[in-house]
Amino acid sequence: MPQLGLLHRRAWAVLVAQLLRPPCEVRLGAVRSHSQQVAEVLTSQLKPQLERSNCIIKTPKGTRDLSPHDMVVREKILDRIVSCFKRHGAKMLDTPAFELKGMLTEKYGEDSKLIFDLKDQGGELLSLRYDLTVPFARYLAMNKVKKMKCYHVGKVWRRESPSIAQGRYREFCQCDFDIAGQYDPMIPDAECLKIICEIISELQLGDFLIKVNDRQILDGMLAICGVPESKFRTICSSVDKLDKISWKDVRYEMVAEKGLAPEVADRIGDYAQCHGGLSLVEQMCQDPRLSQSKQALKGLEDLKLLFKYLTLLGIAEKISFDLSLARGLDYYTGVIYEAVLLQTPSEEELLNVGSVAAGGRYDGLVGLFGHMVPCVGLSIGVDRIFAMVEQKMKTFGERMRTTETQVFVATPQKNFLHERLKLIAELWDAGIKAELLYKNNPKLLTQLHYCENMMIPLVVIIGEQELKKGVIKLRSVVSRKEVDIKRENLVAEIQKRLSES
Amino acid sequence: MPQLGLLHRRAWAVLVAQLLRPPCEVRLGAVRSHSQQVAEVLTSQLKPQLERSNCIIKTPKGTRDLSPHDMVVREKILDRIVSCFKRHGAKMLDTPAFELKGMLTEKYGEDSKLIFDLKDQGGELLSLRYDLTVPFARYLAMNKVKKMKCYHVGKVWRRESPSIAQGRYREFCQCDFDIAGQYDPMIPDAECLKIICEIISELQLGDFLIKVNDRQILDGMLAICGVPESKFRTICSSVDKLDKISWKDVRYEMVAEKGLAPEVADRIGDYAQCHGGLSLVEQMCQDPRLSQSKQALKGLEDLKLLFKYLTLLGIAEKISFDLSLARGLDYYTGVIYEAVLLQTPSEEELLNVGSVAAGGRYDGLVGLFGHMVPCVGLSIGVDRIFAMVEQKMKTFGERMRTTETQVFVATPQKNFLHERLKLIAELWDAGIKAELLYKNNPKLLTQLHYCENMMIPLVVIIGEQELKKGVIKLRSVVSRKEVDIKRENLVAEIQKRLSES
Repeated sequence: MPQLGLLHRRAWAVLVAQLLRPPCEVRLGAVRSHSQQVAEVLTSQLKPQLERSNCIIKTPKGTRDLSPHDMVVREKILDRIVSCFKRHGAKMLDTPAFELKGMLTEKYGEDSKLIFDLKDQGGELLSLRYDLTVPFARYLAMNKVKKMKCYHVGKVWRRESPSIAQGRYREFCQCDFDIAGQYDPMIPDAECLKIICEIISELQLGDFLIKVNDRQILDGMLAICGVPESKFRTICSSVDKLDKISWKDVRYEMVAEKGLAPEVADRIGDYAQCHGGLSLVEQMCQDPRLSQSKQALKGLEDLKLLFKYLTLLGIAEKISFDLSLARGLDYYTGVIYEAVLLQTPSEEELLNVGSVAAGGRYDGLVGLFGHMVPCVGLSIGVDRIFAMVEQKMKTFGERMRTTETQVFVATPQKNFLHERLKLIAELWDAGIKAELLYKNNPKLLTQLHYCENMMIPLVVIIGEQELKKGVIKLRSVVSRKEVDIKRENLVAEIQKRLSES
Repeated sequence: MPQLGLLHRRAWAVLVAQLLRPPCEVRLGAVRSHSQQVAEVLTSQLKPQLERSNCIIKTPKGTRDLSPHDMVVREKILDRIVSCFKRHGAKMLDTPAFELKGMLTEKYGEDSKLIFDLKDQGGELLSLRYDLTVPFARYLAMNKVKKMKCYHVGKVWRRESPSIAQGRYREFCQCDFDIAGQYDPMIPDAECLKIICEIISELQLGDFLIKVNDRQILDGMLAICGVPESKFRTICSSVDKLDKISWKDVRYEMVAEKGLAPEVADRIGDYAQCHGGLSLVEQMCQDPRLSQSKQALKGLEDLKLLFKYLTLLGIAEKISFDLSLARGLDYYTGVIYEAVLLQTPSEEELLNVGSVAAGGRYDGLVGLFGHMVPCVGLSIGVDRIFAMVEQKMKTFGERMRTTETQVFVATPQKNFLHERLKLIAELWDAGIKAELLYKNNPKLLTQLHYCENMMIPLVVIIGEQELKKGVIKLRSVVSRKEVDIKRENLVAEIQKRLSES
């Protein structure tokens, strides 16, 4: 199918290129009417053919463009997130979009099949990054970094089934914050949870809860339930699906697909239904079976200390110890967490975005690259948050500016392009955001309408009269009031008006 | 070779994973000494083995990480560029990192071989984007956009031979500004050149020149020199190399490799050596051979009008009409331009970055996607600019902050983590950028040294005494002056101090 599409594209491109080449003798006016002609031919005859041949102009499956409107919303969200990371003293880092394929193998468990590989065109075998954590770990190892608090914003790629409704794409943006280094226990972990709370609160996404668990508790729990150690990670993957599919389906996967004994699965089920606050942590310490696992006890002690710090940071009531939280990725070794929005039932119908932030401790990952540094971090799901905010904006019908233009340069007169160009250059050079219409003789009404449509606050108008008097007319688009300003005072007056508004 | 590396990696990963798994019975202290132990084993025995097996931890060929220091520099450059785009009323756009392979074919001429393809893992055939122009054109066609002024910042990928010294990478960042739509001639084109001038001036890159030519002049020139029309684009590619290789080598390529008659090549050579201002444009209009080409004349008339506008915008003296400028890409149809820095000979030895900005008119590209919109645009070579700025900073030995932390929370006392956590949460919640050390009992001197190293301006100190008196000690890191501030006034006092500095 793609092969066929390709051939068609090629024929199409050659055809259009031929149509586009103007004959050598055409002149300015004629060239334009020639392109008009080409456009008509394209529209009437070739387009249906194009559509028939399956050669649709689109973005790849699971990806999308972000329109100027989308970008304004997105930039506001990113800005809030990055401000929070900076508030916590993080440095900024960037890594390439692809890594040597070998860097990504053995890191993601069952999810590895979702990695996008690059074609072997000679040279190194490469894969698109699947998350920002493994590249960060590779960076630490490569540069022998022992301590670092940093953030990392970028696109990652996963060959998942896209679900636009849930904001799940094959290309999406992640915002990661990580603390690398050997420190006293649970202090960096507590800061990560504090950051998640700050970001979700500041983005005004409504009420939320952060589910917390610990891989040591999880492994201990699996062990005392009777899961063989070799199956820990794959059973973790199944348990992790509990927020998406029912216990019945998870149980079926564990028993029928992964060969677990039914009674073992049921024991897991009993634990996986438990969630609560510090009191549940204390209760589990007394649990006759779980307390037999020293590993689980170690995890529970860690969580106790974590809850103490979370109370001091004022966020303990946002945290829920949840034994069903497993996280899909292989590399976690300690505390894990996932923030979910608590939507009212009516909102839930609109949009079910799942978790909006997640993370955990991964003390072994950097070691896989030959350099031992314990780490803890978090990742914000910008695209899911974006989907929610977009939905809300649609509901409230908010109108947003997509440009920042402050001043429009207009004229009521014909043949005044020269004066407009001189004037706008002056404004640009003074750092003022300014636009004009790319026409020799635009109508004044067209120019003023443009300002209203684009929500540009000020218009400067230059005509024969103004030129003679050495003034410029300054007009407020909202109040429609106009005053004459001496040309030499114009920039200062505009700057004054802008600083007042 | 990569296959071998992969096997080694796999064995290595399994080995480390085994070493990392602590025995179930170890307790808190023991776990840590166990990882210490693992680290030692890794360092002493396994690392040399790792290096021998060619399994080097690195980024892919021609790519690099950007360290926090790099990112600070890069963000400042991007910020200037984007501010300029916004000053000219541009909206922001984003497109996916990869496109359907068919979207990129027949767009780049000889450069097409440099496109990175994705592996066929089932589904669509995909390629990484080679520039931001073709995705922009695809966006316009897909959304039937008729007018749009927008900018687009993102990474692009090319399988070129990397040259670190010249800032040439396989992954690099482009900042594009484009004006789409049918307008009166040369007005948007002039604005693009104005933007390039503003950006290079604001980045203080030293003196520069923008070479300008027109594809119509170029094609007319090739025609009257005797180049067959089928060879126009490939000969353009050769001419375009004149800034990198000598005329002799370009001539050899045209004659020996591309089959041009020697006298035809020499005729081209005569024109390609011409460069100058408006007077050269006027001179070429009178050129007995060139003036026979109506296409060339049309291009020369366009350039005359362009120079008129550039004079009004105050940038004509930065522009050089240069008949050797050809631009490698297929899709240009009118004015083309390229900005070069005019370095003194001593600087040139340090770093030869080539052009830092380039662009042109591409009236046919969107039409290849079945929607006819004329466009003109420009692209800023951020990575080349970055290489230059880095070089300068090294020369001047500038020191830069990589974090923005305003306040450090310290204690002279043991067992004061609780109070520090409560205090820092208060600061964070007030929007103040604050840090503390992740230690239960850090030494005061260590804490103060950290502030000096990280250039953090303020320290708040809490101890037994302060706690009793209900105050916090506020210390200026530079002056080392300390004052007691009432706890309830602390946030206000810090905000006052920060606004003053």
